[in-house]
Amino acid sequence: MNINGQHYRTIWRHPQQPEIVQIIDQRKLPFRFEIVDLTTAADAAVAIRDMTVRGAGLIGATAGYGMMLSALRAPKDSREAFLQQVTADGDLLKAARPTAVNLAWAVDRQLAAIGAADSIETAVQAAEITAQAIADEDAEYCRRIGEHGVELIEEIASRKKPGEAVNILTHCNAGWLAFVDYGSATAPIYAAHDRGIPVHVWVDETRPRNQGARLTAWELAQHGVPHHVIADNVGGHLMQHGMVDLCIVGSDRTTFTGDVANKVGTYLKALAAYDNGVPFYAALPSSTFDWTMTDGVHQIPIEERGGEEVHTVEGLTAAGDVTEVRILTPDSPVANYGFDVTPARLVTGLITERGICAANADSILALYPEKRSTE
Amino acid sequence: MNINGQHYRTIWRHPQQPEIVQIIDQRKLPFRFEIVDLTTAADAAVAIRDMTVRGAGLIGATAGYGMMLSALRAPKDSREAFLQQVTADGDLLKAARPTAVNLAWAVDRQLAAIGAADSIETAVQAAEITAQAIADEDAEYCRRIGEHGVELIEEIASRKKPGEAVNILTHCNAGWLAFVDYGSATAPIYAAHDRGIPVHVWVDETRPRNQGARLTAWELAQHGVPHHVIADNVGGHLMQHGMVDLCIVGSDRTTFTGDVANKVGTYLKALAAYDNGVPFYAALPSSTFDWTMTDGVHQIPIEERGGEEVHTVEGLTAAGDVTEVRILTPDSPVANYGFDVTPARLVTGLITERGICAANADSILALYPEKRSTE
Repeated sequence: MNINGQHYRTIWRHPQQPEIVQIIDQRKLPFRFEIVDLTTAADAAVAIRDMTVRGAGLIGATAGYGMMLSALRAPKDSREAFLQQVTADGDLLKAARPTAVNLAWAVDRQLAAIGAADSIETAVQAAEITAQAIADEDAEYCRRIGEHGVELIEEIASRKKPGEAVNILTHCNAGWLAFVDYGSATAPIYAAHDRGIPVHVWVDETRPRNQGARLTAWELAQHGVPHHVIADNVGGHLMQHGMVDLCIVGSDRTTFTGDVANKVGTYLKALAAYDNGVPFYAALPSSTFDWTMTDGVHQIPIEERGGEEVHTVEGLTAAGDVTEVRILTPDSPVANYGFDVTPARLVTGLITERGICAANADSILALYPEKRSTE
Repeated sequence: MNINGQHYRTIWRHPQQPEIVQIIDQRKLPFRFEIVDLTTAADAAVAIRDMTVRGAGLIGATAGYGMMLSALRAPKDSREAFLQQVTADGDLLKAARPTAVNLAWAVDRQLAAIGAADSIETAVQAAEITAQAIADEDAEYCRRIGEHGVELIEEIASRKKPGEAVNILTHCNAGWLAFVDYGSATAPIYAAHDRGIPVHVWVDETRPRNQGARLTAWELAQHGVPHHVIADNVGGHLMQHGMVDLCIVGSDRTTFTGDVANKVGTYLKALAAYDNGVPFYAALPSSTFDWTMTDGVHQIPIEERGGEEVHTVEGLTAAGDVTEVRILTPDSPVANYGFDVTPARLVTGLITERGICAANADSILALYPEKRSTE
């Protein structure tokens, strides 16, 4: 999507120096827009671990490019030494964020492609092709989510007065910054905006890490999509008063029975949507489905994160410095659950790269019939 | 309640200099505990306007004491000049926060008491007695709310294993800092704690102004009540997993049909409580009832506040300075609705100074039969 009027992906090869991969330092957004060079697999691992990049799709793409950097730089004098280095770099990358499913998947895909090559030269080419393919597929899946999801927005727009915006509420950042391009929850929004359908987005700030305020709002502002940032407390009031036409959120894991794990607070918005007859959708590429669990609320483990995220907030001082302030006394302990699970009964539907389906096993498996055997 | 092991109210006459009234500067909590002297009605008006004091009960008490200061300092040479000054100070106080119902009520009560006196001397005495009475009644109403509400906590405790805490979730600050003592939502909690019933409180941080993180958590920590601060997004997850036994919130206005206006986000917690079978109570003195409105969601006006509250957060730097940081770019507009309305159907009951009742007109009017005529 666009930054300062120019198209970007979240990760790309340097146009003049293809042995360098470039990313946006997302930790510094929205206060600074800085591009970081990755020249080694270790650089990529650090970027993943330090959350310079984040989001399932982008972590996978960074791991893919990280393995490409490994292949480009690994010793070329013997196949054994080459493969040893590439394998070690794969382990390094996988350890950067052990719970990120896409990370291990991308590394393993690269190891298979590299291992299948019959020479070091073709192995390097395979790593380059695979890195590009992982990124392109991620972008293409999100583009298709946008193509399917935009139909929901078009349908609502058709019932509005001419020029009246469709109001969409989203939580956290399931935007293009979390993927390679388009995003998941944002893909239908960008598609609608780019087609000239008037849209307006309510952006939950998404405490405690403020991904909505910091990332989603910045994305939308850069791409020119009208929006307002709101405290996480506000969405219920807006829905009670007819100010939200549609909710679209992302997902970190969705059971094949339709329970949606996403950033904590999603469940509260789904309850308000249900209570007020507002359609509530999760947008996700199929890699987000869990084909084994049947009861998301009780089976999906919820990460409890460190308390500093709640105790402190990062922002810009009047002098323009990025700094962290403590917002409560150290006397008060905090609890910091990172995610919650919205039960399928509150989810109107799922927007996937293959189309829109209801949040139940029959509808999901009808879109993904090859998964029926795992039931 | 207690601060550093010593009992305080939120407002009191200086023990050695009774012509001085003292308050806690609540804007500086929890970072600094500072006591401020009020010597004139104008001082009291500034304290109300600048939110050095806040909360319906405390605003009323501050107005009462402000009128006492006015009477103490007004010219005593003629009754006319005396009353003129007192009346002017009443207008000044009322203008400090025009929407605060308790403010005008306390000023008018003082003006009536002062006006009914047959000399300047007895008028000053009446103002002193009335100021004390307003504060004492506020504390007494909250104490009774605690006496009634603690029965709910006792009942839950009786079903727990010995020593296992009753988990109570609250939103915003309806604590003793918002009243003269005890608070409304916190009164049952303090009563239970002081009786040795183990309680643990989940404190919503309450963005955007963070009254939960700043005030409620500080109150509870000072009084020794176990608690955890949580992001506003977390309560739903906790309720899904049986980690909340009871929700108690305050109210800014409650219709006699049981719709509860309170700090924005309350409605979302009520939805989660209802979805998970967690009892959800609002605690309020009867002055909070609106005896005219029947449909809170559509009739209670919701204040839209300035955007700076969402754009910025105040906290403590590593160097120990209280400072404000901007947490999103000025490119992103914000919307800042201060309150929402929880419909009566989601409210298990109301805890008042006269007892607990269901959230409907019949039950409320059964406790307040003298209000039947206004139906």
